[in-house]
Amino acid sequence: MNISANLFTDLPANLPKELVTTLLQAADVRIERIVSHGHASPEGFWYDQGQSEWVIVLQGAATLRFENSVLEMKPGDFVNIPANKKHRVDWTTPDQPTVWLGVRYAATP
Amino acid sequence: MNISANLFTDLPANLPKELVTTLLQAADVRIERIVSHGHASPEGFWYDQGQSEWVIVLQGAATLRFENSVLEMKPGDFVNIPANKKHRVDWTTPDQPTVWLGVRYAATP
Repeated sequence: MNISANLFTDLPANLPKELVTTLLQAADVRIERIVSHGHASPEGFWYDQGQSEWVIVLQGAATLRFENSVLEMKPGDFVNIPANKKHRVDWTTPDQPTVWLGVRYAATP
Repeated sequence: MNISANLFTDLPANLPKELVTTLLQAADVRIERIVSHGHASPEGFWYDQGQSEWVIVLQGAATLRFENSVLEMKPGDFVNIPANKKHRVDWTTPDQPTVWLGVRYAATP
């Protein structure tokens, strides 16, 4: 993807699995576009990441699950997920592609 | 703004100047919401920043000017602005608030 482009273009019509595209990679930050279409994390799977991640839903709808809470997300909703906070994608809408923007970054020391 | 919130809420009806809200501050990254409504950079003013900045327009419309180029931006359009690349906001639409998401980060060494 170019240095200047549009987040909502090139959404695949068929999406056998979640599609992650790196938009920017710098020393301590990576910006990604994540496209899901009805995908969820595998049963029993939890993300447990060494980096922190700030994510926003920009199209579609999704449900994020943490160990003790559930977050239903619609366009514009964002959340910060600290490093090693377990989470999983419980659901994304089957109606249209869900487009997320994610910013992975090193946790503050 | 809370750790979990919506980017498109709390848009002020009256906006005497550009409104910048920090959504996340970490060691080497700051995520900001920027709301403009018909604002432009002052005549003759150029941003010349020590940090790099990745920005995306998510609502509204804007024109960014660089020393040798002009970029018309609509929702979903993003661009990476390296540190010390001079730029200015030439125009934002008067029709509605323009909402940007900006990620400031240290340039790769």
